[in-house]
Amino acid sequence: MVAELSVVGKRLPRPDAFDKATGAARYAADTKMPQMLIGKVLRSPYPHARILSIDKSKAEKLPGIEAVITLEDVPNKLLNGALMDLKMPPQMAKGVVRDQYVLTDKARYVGDAVAAVAAVNETTAEKALELIEVEYEKLQAVFDPIEAMKPDAPRIHDFAERNIAQHLSYHFATGDVEGGFQEADFVVEETFHTSKQKHCQLELDASIASFDATGRLTIWSQCQAPHLARRRIAEMFDMPEGMVRLITPHIGGGFGGRSNLNTELVCVALAQKAGKPVKLEYTREEDFTVHHSRQPFVQTGKIGVKKEGTITALQTSVIANGGAYFEASGGTTGLNISSFMSLYKCPNTAGEADIVYTNIPISGGMRGFGNPQAMFVLEQLVDMACEKIGMDPVEFRLKNHRQTGDPSWFATFPVTSCALDECIKVGAERIGWKDKKGRKKEGVRRQGIGMAIMSHPSEVWPLYSGHSSAAVKMNADGSANLVVHPAEIGQGTWGVLAQIAAEELGIRAEDIHIVTGDTDVTLFDMGTYACRSTYATGNAVLRAAREAKGQLIERAAKTLGVPANKLEVRDRQIYIRTTPEKRISVAEVARDAIYNFQGECSNILGKYSFEATGVSPSFQAGFVEVEVDTETGEIKVLKILIVHDIGKAINPMSVEGQLEGAIAQGIGYSLIEDFVISKNSGVVESDNFITYKIPSPPDLPEIEVILVEEGDPLGPFGAKSVAEPGLITIAPAIANAIYDAVGVRMTELPITPEKLLKALRVK
Amino acid sequence: MVAELSVVGKRLPRPDAFDKATGAARYAADTKMPQMLIGKVLRSPYPHARILSIDKSKAEKLPGIEAVITLEDVPNKLLNGALMDLKMPPQMAKGVVRDQYVLTDKARYVGDAVAAVAAVNETTAEKALELIEVEYEKLQAVFDPIEAMKPDAPRIHDFAERNIAQHLSYHFATGDVEGGFQEADFVVEETFHTSKQKHCQLELDASIASFDATGRLTIWSQCQAPHLARRRIAEMFDMPEGMVRLITPHIGGGFGGRSNLNTELVCVALAQKAGKPVKLEYTREEDFTVHHSRQPFVQTGKIGVKKEGTITALQTSVIANGGAYFEASGGTTGLNISSFMSLYKCPNTAGEADIVYTNIPISGGMRGFGNPQAMFVLEQLVDMACEKIGMDPVEFRLKNHRQTGDPSWFATFPVTSCALDECIKVGAERIGWKDKKGRKKEGVRRQGIGMAIMSHPSEVWPLYSGHSSAAVKMNADGSANLVVHPAEIGQGTWGVLAQIAAEELGIRAEDIHIVTGDTDVTLFDMGTYACRSTYATGNAVLRAAREAKGQLIERAAKTLGVPANKLEVRDRQIYIRTTPEKRISVAEVARDAIYNFQGECSNILGKYSFEATGVSPSFQAGFVEVEVDTETGEIKVLKILIVHDIGKAINPMSVEGQLEGAIAQGIGYSLIEDFVISKNSGVVESDNFITYKIPSPPDLPEIEVILVEEGDPLGPFGAKSVAEPGLITIAPAIANAIYDAVGVRMTELPITPEKLLKALRVK
Repeated sequence: MVAELSVVGKRLPRPDAFDKATGAARYAADTKMPQMLIGKVLRSPYPHARILSIDKSKAEKLPGIEAVITLEDVPNKLLNGALMDLKMPPQMAKGVVRDQYVLTDKARYVGDAVAAVAAVNETTAEKALELIEVEYEKLQAVFDPIEAMKPDAPRIHDFAERNIAQHLSYHFATGDVEGGFQEADFVVEETFHTSKQKHCQLELDASIASFDATGRLTIWSQCQAPHLARRRIAEMFDMPEGMVRLITPHIGGGFGGRSNLNTELVCVALAQKAGKPVKLEYTREEDFTVHHSRQPFVQTGKIGVKKEGTITALQTSVIANGGAYFEASGGTTGLNISSFMSLYKCPNTAGEADIVYTNIPISGGMRGFGNPQAMFVLEQLVDMACEKIGMDPVEFRLKNHRQTGDPSWFATFPVTSCALDECIKVGAERIGWKDKKGRKKEGVRRQGIGMAIMSHPSEVWPLYSGHSSAAVKMNADGSANLVVHPAEIGQGTWGVLAQIAAEELGIRAEDIHIVTGDTDVTLFDMGTYACRSTYATGNAVLRAAREAKGQLIERAAKTLGVPANKLEVRDRQIYIRTTPEKRISVAEVARDAIYNFQGECSNILGKYSFEATGVSPSFQAGFVEVEVDTETGEIKVLKILIVHDIGKAINPMSVEGQLEGAIAQGIGYSLIEDFVISKNSGVVESDNFITYKIPSPPDLPEIEVILVEEGDPLGPFGAKSVAEPGLITIAPAIANAIYDAVGVRMTELPITPEKLLKALRVK
Repeated sequence: MVAELSVVGKRLPRPDAFDKATGAARYAADTKMPQMLIGKVLRSPYPHARILSIDKSKAEKLPGIEAVITLEDVPNKLLNGALMDLKMPPQMAKGVVRDQYVLTDKARYVGDAVAAVAAVNETTAEKALELIEVEYEKLQAVFDPIEAMKPDAPRIHDFAERNIAQHLSYHFATGDVEGGFQEADFVVEETFHTSKQKHCQLELDASIASFDATGRLTIWSQCQAPHLARRRIAEMFDMPEGMVRLITPHIGGGFGGRSNLNTELVCVALAQKAGKPVKLEYTREEDFTVHHSRQPFVQTGKIGVKKEGTITALQTSVIANGGAYFEASGGTTGLNISSFMSLYKCPNTAGEADIVYTNIPISGGMRGFGNPQAMFVLEQLVDMACEKIGMDPVEFRLKNHRQTGDPSWFATFPVTSCALDECIKVGAERIGWKDKKGRKKEGVRRQGIGMAIMSHPSEVWPLYSGHSSAAVKMNADGSANLVVHPAEIGQGTWGVLAQIAAEELGIRAEDIHIVTGDTDVTLFDMGTYACRSTYATGNAVLRAAREAKGQLIERAAKTLGVPANKLEVRDRQIYIRTTPEKRISVAEVARDAIYNFQGECSNILGKYSFEATGVSPSFQAGFVEVEVDTETGEIKVLKILIVHDIGKAINPMSVEGQLEGAIAQGIGYSLIEDFVISKNSGVVESDNFITYKIPSPPDLPEIEVILVEEGDPLGPFGAKSVAEPGLITIAPAIANAIYDAVGVRMTELPITPEKLLKALRVK
């Protein structure tokens, strides 16, 4: 597509690596300041209860307690902790449900925040919690969404009849889905149950809030959308946005858990009451119960196919177990249905969903954001349909997936690039699909092979704003400061953005110094979600660097005495294209600009406000080989191969890391992880790493990742999304492999040995 | 000149005031970080000695010592600590003498830095100093510059014959000064001695240096020229500039003492050796001896006048007592002569200077930077000449001072504005000059009145670069972040710059949030010296705000459906000039720009790199009334009135504060302050606030400050310099008043009762 790249495409070490590896990195909880207090939250022990009274007096009298707050002390404003309304255009934002207060008016799950204290130390804070006297009136609780929708179910939010927070219809539905099913030769319909998975990021939630003498707030926050978080915090506390400064420290993982505000609002309320800085940090148990977790769905999917292997209709109806509050449920449910409908060519589509309140911890966004759940359904339906028409699943998918030029996600503009054919073919060849599929199965241990495909957007425009801005400031030594504010949550975005800037400027990656993490300094960025940091912030960086380069070239043109369009920049030199020995270094131009004594000084600064005008979905084919022990039900994953249509891997090491890490989470999602919630008490019994197991190296199979780089016209250097996709094909590919091995269709996640044995017995 | 101003010209509280008054302000020594060590410096007890050997071994073995450094551990590069060479164009910079190492090769004054240690705490560091064994060979020392120039004087620097560091000739000399004196009816010549005054800023010198895991250096530094300091530090330690980040904390006073690097280089050397962060803080005693102090001069001035009261010739020859190292001596001496020659119309001028090394602490820049010393000479010569021709000193000055259009400082372009006539007339009227001048004196206590005038530049272009850059970033609430990096040393520059930005943007001063103090973030600025922050950085701010405003107006024009030139901004509203009810708020435009969902997002950012192309000198008339006790010699200042040609007072409260504070320093300079250095040992005996007295409120007379605001075409909103001028007329006006009172001409500073009595006896 372009001349050989010097920096983009290279496996370079990441700028954040050194501080993280040496322990020098400072995370949210690591900052200390004079007079800083420790915050703690008192939580409801009941899944559903009215709060009749709260007596703070004993707690307030405890020496060392500087604030005790309850509902009466927090802003009288409902909010949506997932900032969903801030991402959308005003008219769409009206559809976002705001149903929470900073401290609750009513206990709706075990862990709901009832009160909070700020104390001189942790011990005193914990003592104070014990002294707060809450009078509850226990109410009947409901944990299952179908039970919750029954007429006699307890109502969790006053406004939500039958506990339905919201009903969604698929906005981009096409054709006539009933007619489509009638046209079909075969119709397959099945209902699936997906699980509640936890992000399990290494770093616990924490924030620090500090008001200065003028009333200006500084808050250290892990939120993946820093500028939006700042806006929401300002709004909630009736402050002009300019009076809030949000600092993003190093973050130890996000996976979509930090798209929301977590500790921030309680922390600010405590700091406001106490008149001193407050640090609020959650325990791991609070992380499991208070911090949202992946949306579980009860999802029915229906596919109609013709004998020759085309799809005539696709329909889905979804019941989302939203948990106690709405937060991102609208987003994950909407994206579930969009994912379901955006992968294959199909003239007749329809989808409906009910988002249902229950008395379990909040369900929301986690890596994939509804797409993994949708693919668990769709990609099994597709295999089921293939079996009916006797077509090979690889062939079927090659025949039916959307291509470049077909309507894309959100149906507003066409797919800009799609290398899925290549992904499918390469993967099938590599894994030995032809030889392994449909082998004769015998014996106790039986092997099987399965596949799945997926598509995932690189942005959410126009459903959300796609605004990311960047600035590039040249130093006198020819290095550049790159001012950006995505969230480096471990995915390697700083390194990728530095490589993009360096490539464009014609300098080395190590010549880029990242300046980030302070809303006073950085230009607006919507934040890091929907895999958008490489795509959107990367495009802003590319253009900002291009502006800076333009200023460098303009000045070099004067010095070298030629028009600017005769010049090139490469290897930190600006030279005349036709006579390259005539050159001047980038450093010399940048230095001269600053110290020019002829009246033409400039500290070269390129700035660009980018807005995505496409979503450039990435595509992927995933292949899994399993071995099932028909006596124990044990499922051993032998090999996972994914082939990802990345467009361009800015840093292949980072891309592979993202895919491999997501695969590991996908294995957990498929086979191990789920919340265990007591049906009696509503208590989350799987609230730490002993009771909630995640895969560790011995649990992982042989993993292979292949990247296909055919470029995208809109992505920076052709790059598309990768952060979430690695997780999306795993569960359906495993389920399809299990079916290939032992002939049972596993419709519930996680696929445990117990469930498998049960299914085998039924069969 | 313009429509009524809303913000500029108002007495608004300063943005830094709250943190300073509440104690929340964090100064250089207030930052703590993990593993931080404490640095201490071992200093020569001798004024002049060879260093034969240094044995570090015992010190290095002391538990808790992590680094011991001497000359062999510091960069093998000579430097000029006053960063003079970085301010000048390359060809001029060659004239800057670089004669110091980070730790010395030879002891040249009592206090010269011989070694340094970094330890886990202060006590251990101090113990370690005692364990370093230095073998000195004492050499003869010389403290007086005239003695130092004698052939048999000990040579302090090998390269400097007769200890002359540099000889300067006045670059802009005109005509034929010998011929001019021959033309004159009267010639007055006299030699004056000025003193070594200390800045006495409240905050002690301190810096903290910390290298991260990649070798990148962060340094907390009080240097008034942050970007230049960063460059010099990078150079010294062979680092690319992009690998150095300089942070400017709150600063507790500067007065020109912090134009230099002080603790920084030793601090960085210690951090490099120790491999851990190091804080180096000087004691008050070190502040007096190590940190430079005002350049003392032996200065002969000669003036030729005609009977009718015109000046035919002006000449000066100067001997600067440079102290042990050159630092800013070239600058102060050059500015002394330029000051001398730039105030009056005179066709024949010449000046020469010798900058002489002596074994006393370094002489350099302090508020006025050579101008106070020059005026002590010139303004007394003028009074002496007036007496000869029988002309009133007010009349003479009115007749002869330079006017708008006359050659200005550095003679490259004309004076842009001069309201000195107004200043002189207003002041003379207000103080009652006609009635009080030349009154009959009788009795023991005699009163007198005196005056002086001065001019001072607002920039030093083209001798130095005049580059200051600023950026203005709009927030969604209509407030703006102002990104600048002058040094707020207590003069109120943040407030002034905020008012300039707010005025231009049509918003309130409290809507401006200052973003500063980090070279990673801020654009280049030459720094704060030569009173340039309002003038140069203010002009950059004005233009950056104008750019941001232009972007706001462009967007508002679209919304309101009119061409941009029909719009005005005022009181946070953008409205159509002819139909002002058609309007949109600045906040709405800024917010819409960020969240525009139509594909036209922008985080509005105005940026401007300004380069001064003039110096817009300010002018001032100072009037003093004294009462002299002819028996005790006591001099009581009854009243000081200064009338300052400020152009435009952006914040009159700040301007008055600057003038009043400088007057207080002027009183100390005139009557009290001087270093007491033992002629035997070279030890500074006046090295703390007990032994070196500075004026306190009881010592101050009635002070009145009047501002004349006639505007300057180049200054932002017409503003000119004020930071240094308040000090410049005081000493000569006091001396002239003393002469009026008792008829003795005091030619040496400070003017003490002892010296006055002696002069009275002689008379």
